[in-house]
Amino acid sequence: MAYVHGATGKGNDQCRFQLAAEALDPNVKIIAPWRLERFRERFPGRTAMIAYCKEKNIPVKASVAKPYSSDENCLHISYEAGNLEDPMVNGVATVEFGMTVSPQNAPDKIENVKIGFASGVPVSVDGKRLGAFEIVSLLNKIGGRNGVGQIDMVENRFVGMKSRGVYEAPGMTVLYAAHRVLEQLTMDRDLMHLRDRLSPEVAEMVYYGFWYHAKLDALMAFCREAQKPVTGEVSLDLYKGNVIVAGRKSPNSLYDEGIATMEGGGSYNQTDAEGFLRIEGLPGRVQAKVSPRKY
Amino acid sequence: MAYVHGATGKGNDQCRFQLAAEALDPNVKIIAPWRLERFRERFPGRTAMIAYCKEKNIPVKASVAKPYSSDENCLHISYEAGNLEDPMVNGVATVEFGMTVSPQNAPDKIENVKIGFASGVPVSVDGKRLGAFEIVSLLNKIGGRNGVGQIDMVENRFVGMKSRGVYEAPGMTVLYAAHRVLEQLTMDRDLMHLRDRLSPEVAEMVYYGFWYHAKLDALMAFCREAQKPVTGEVSLDLYKGNVIVAGRKSPNSLYDEGIATMEGGGSYNQTDAEGFLRIEGLPGRVQAKVSPRKY
Amino acid sequence: MAYVHGATGKGNDQCRFQLAAEALDPNVKIIAPWRLERFRERFPGRTAMIAYCKEKNIPVKASVAKPYSSDENCLHISYEAGNLEDPMVNGVATVEFGMTVSPQNAPDKIENVKIGFASGVPVSVDGKRLGAFEIVSLLNKIGGRNGVGQIDMVENRFVGMKSRGVYEAPGMTVLYAAHRVLEQLTMDRDLMHLRDRLSPEVAEMVYYGFWYHAKLDALMAFCREAQKPVTGEVSLDLYKGNVIVAGRKSPNSLYDEGIATMEGGGSYNQTDAEGFLRIEGLPGRVQAKVSPRKY
Amino acid sequence: MAYVHGATGKGNDQCRFQLAAEALDPNVKIIAPWRLERFRERFPGRTAMIAYCKEKNIPVKASVAKPYSSDENCLHISYEAGNLEDPMVNGVATVEFGMTVSPQNAPDKIENVKIGFASGVPVSVDGKRLGAFEIVSLLNKIGGRNGVGQIDMVENRFVGMKSRGVYEAPGMTVLYAAHRVLEQLTMDRDLMHLRDRLSPEVAEMVYYGFWYHAKLDALMAFCREAQKPVTGEVSLDLYKGNVIVAGRKSPNSLYDEGIATMEGGGSYNQTDAEGFLRIEGLPGRVQAKVSPRKY
Repeated sequence: MAYVHGATGKGNDQCRFQLAAEALDPNVKIIAPWRLERFRERFPGRTAMIAYCKEKNIPVKASVAKPYSSDENCLHISYEAGNLEDPMVNGVATVEFGMTVSPQNAPDKIENVKIGFASGVPVSVDGKRLGAFEIVSLLNKIGGRNGVGQIDMVENRFVGMKSRGVYEAPGMTVLYAAHRVLEQLTMDRDLMHLRDRLSPEVAEMVYYGFWYHAKLDALMAFCREAQKPVTGEVSLDLYKGNVIVAGRKSPNSLYDEGIATMEGGGSYNQTDAEGFLRIEGLPGRVQAKVSPRKY
Repeated sequence: MAYVHGATGKGNDQCRFQLAAEALDPNVKIIAPWRLERFRERFPGRTAMIAYCKEKNIPVKASVAKPYSSDENCLHISYEAGNLEDPMVNGVATVEFGMTVSPQNAPDKIENVKIGFASGVPVSVDGKRLGAFEIVSLLNKIGGRNGVGQIDMVENRFVGMKSRGVYEAPGMTVLYAAHRVLEQLTMDRDLMHLRDRLSPEVAEMVYYGFWYHAKLDALMAFCREAQKPVTGEVSLDLYKGNVIVAGRKSPNSLYDEGIATMEGGGSYNQTDAEGFLRIEGLPGRVQAKVSPRKY
Repeated sequence: MAYVHGATGKGNDQCRFQLAAEALDPNVKIIAPWRLERFRERFPGRTAMIAYCKEKNIPVKASVAKPYSSDENCLHISYEAGNLEDPMVNGVATVEFGMTVSPQNAPDKIENVKIGFASGVPVSVDGKRLGAFEIVSLLNKIGGRNGVGQIDMVENRFVGMKSRGVYEAPGMTVLYAAHRVLEQLTMDRDLMHLRDRLSPEVAEMVYYGFWYHAKLDALMAFCREAQKPVTGEVSLDLYKGNVIVAGRKSPNSLYDEGIATMEGGGSYNQTDAEGFLRIEGLPGRVQAKVSPRKY
Repeated sequence: MAYVHGATGKGNDQCRFQLAAEALDPNVKIIAPWRLERFRERFPGRTAMIAYCKEKNIPVKASVAKPYSSDENCLHISYEAGNLEDPMVNGVATVEFGMTVSPQNAPDKIENVKIGFASGVPVSVDGKRLGAFEIVSLLNKIGGRNGVGQIDMVENRFVGMKSRGVYEAPGMTVLYAAHRVLEQLTMDRDLMHLRDRLSPEVAEMVYYGFWYHAKLDALMAFCREAQKPVTGEVSLDLYKGNVIVAGRKSPNSLYDEGIATMEGGGSYNQTDAEGFLRIEGLPGRVQAKVSPRKY
């Protein structure tokens, strides 16, 4: 059995396809014509390939005229190559976006949206329980019409080169913001700081294509445990590209006015800060005696 | 000698004051009246203190009427307490901001600003060389009038409780975005991924008050080395709260059309991706043979 | 309800007792007499307290004569204070150990021991299935009579000061070595490298006393997932303080002669290394073109 | 210009050679015959190559008879392949070591050695100032005759497979122990914990061959800053494979009896531990109120 794909030999997709396929079936044969020299001799580039498709009446979306290429799925559309290869070119001004209007063309009026989470997973929009695909599709619409989620960046491919990409991901941008807001309310401080240091590793593994990999399995076990209390609802105001926090609540809130007041009058005693800081400062005081800092 | 400050015993400022002072002078005595029980007996809270100041004609900015408190420096203004203690209250709609207009009240027109960096440090605005304070002051104005940099968050104090804060930091928001854009162009991928994992540690040390500390010294040595190539200019479009990348350039760019083309025709050979992925996938293939994944 | 303990206010035990107790019952009152000024006025130190116990016929193990103090549990005995406070004093030559002979006094003959693990947990010694306590007790005996597990170190207490401790932990030293050997055989490389970076965080949390803590919960979820394949048996030769690997095997071995040979003749192709290294070296080559290194 | 080497296409050396060479000269051509299919057709393996050398009177150290191969430099000798490919084979019992005697054959008598460091760099042995190469050579002798530094491990090559190696590195084993002992005395706790988390990254970069790389430059800047206070002398007892701490001293010691006593009677106040632990336990108490743990 073989797995054949048409990804160029320069990008990330080939990595994700192959690493995932081989992790599931170590004997699968991968055939990627663009990585074969004799294929590239026959079709030196996009232009020759598009011409061939036209000649043979093979329908393809790509056109020679378009000044950049794009790739689309339910989470985002990416734009790269062509004009966009110049990092001085204004990316969002160049691209004809498919999911979003520009902030300038968005309505001059706040649109509020409420997103519910259960243990870190989005489960509702505006109080209506929906599946994952429905949620991201709906938020693509809502975010998109408010100019949310256009991104212009230089990224670092797994195959070693920097590349410039313009993206639109309205739904994911809204979800990312909402999720973070709810984490702030429900996740323990020291866990969150560690999570912040592990997030780039999760992102790297996923971006490179190591989805089926022992390291990612262990990282995901960490994430699932860390996300357990991240349940609640976040209210966001979308306005011309902005995602503004309008409110948040959770049954697991670790910031609770009730507790805060009770802590203020009871459990939290300002006198404790004396001892706390004397001990937190002890290593620094010893250090300062042994090797005084110049100041 | 003693160092006396009026910070409450509940916040972060007391930590920064004391840890910094003791690291510079391990024998300094810190007196923080709000942490002394007998002081709090005399002045149980803000109201009693404000009343006392009024009675004694001591001028203080705080007023009982204001529904929240604020703290200001050249980098930002913070707002907290009072009405803002309810995380369901809309923070940016509640606060009367001092440095920024709301996105709604910002001009309906893009304002472009160009920021120059030398080894990670901002050195110019719109081509004009300026000092650090001048840069942040100018960007506070430019960002502020375009509605940039309002933040509503729940944070985690060093003394252990979560607290809710609303901030405005227009200049720093613009600088943060510009800096990141330039790093993308000039910083090595693997270094950047490590930097992403160390940033939360730098932030934690600074936030907690460990500015004069051996760990921060070593982290800053890392940062200074990492920032060496981050030189160049970033062009940003500010529009009603949005910070949009308009362009970037650097003499140290690792994304260079010239190199890309040269690599394309020379150094980068798509055939190499075959071997690269066969070897990157080897551990996964062995894993899959030893313990096949169900799928 | 209150939790009263006799730990000094200078050590780590007070931290572990209190943080664990409060995490389980946030309303528990902790009473630690040595942290109360009026208690220390009555009993300024160990000498006064031992004298009082003698006078009142309260049996205590501590004696004024012993030139250091010790603490014992099934995992180890620790020795500190007294003569040991001088870091130039030879720790292992000073202490009269309770669980171990010195390497010099151990038999001049290898003793072999085989330890079995199931998903990272030790389950057998020399083929005999045993419980956790039995395993560590047995290995304390076996390791102890071979001079294994004496440690002299300067450590960093949670309350801020460095302290010098001498330890003996023969069973745990043997288990640690065996576990590591089995991990080498069964754990994925990239997961192991991440594990190496997270281990210090697990150790810190446990040492400080944050056993019942959201961050440790998430770290343990990571560990449990990572340990799943760590099943097998390790054969160790103990000889006068040395722990020598004599052999290891696992049904989940990722180093398998069969696979290696098959890979050699099949899946691993030396030609792949060409492409692999060309791509791994790409960022460095671009870097070298943009900013050549002096050499 | 080309760089030609005879490393097999399966190991780590080819990575180090090539990545270093290309980082210094991005245009250098690397020729590694064992990675070329037509070369391997002519010489399918070691046996054919050794036969050819014999026939042509080319002197080579390798012999077909030896049941494993070895590689030597001033830091270590490595042994692998052949009999050693079976992880159940006892590695140290199989290898005829070149630098070390076995613990069993070492003298039944402690040999003491004192190693001096300046900012983390070893500078003297037994009080005699020596250069780096002299130090490691001398310690190879001293460690070697006391049976120190034999290692048997399964490691993870950059090219993806696990491999089994037996090593001897007597000098480096002694230096590693001595350095760690001195760090314990002189390095700040929080810095050391971060160092522990960064060490695996330094090791990985060096092992893979990324010596000339922006990420390693930044890590080394971190290390140099962290090592500044690591100055002093460590006394070690070597005995039949054991490296035993006999004493340590440093002008930068953060564990100083003088300071400890002074802190005990002055700067360290046990009462402070009350406040310290109340605040360190605050997040856990809030957590326990919101989501009580079952126990």
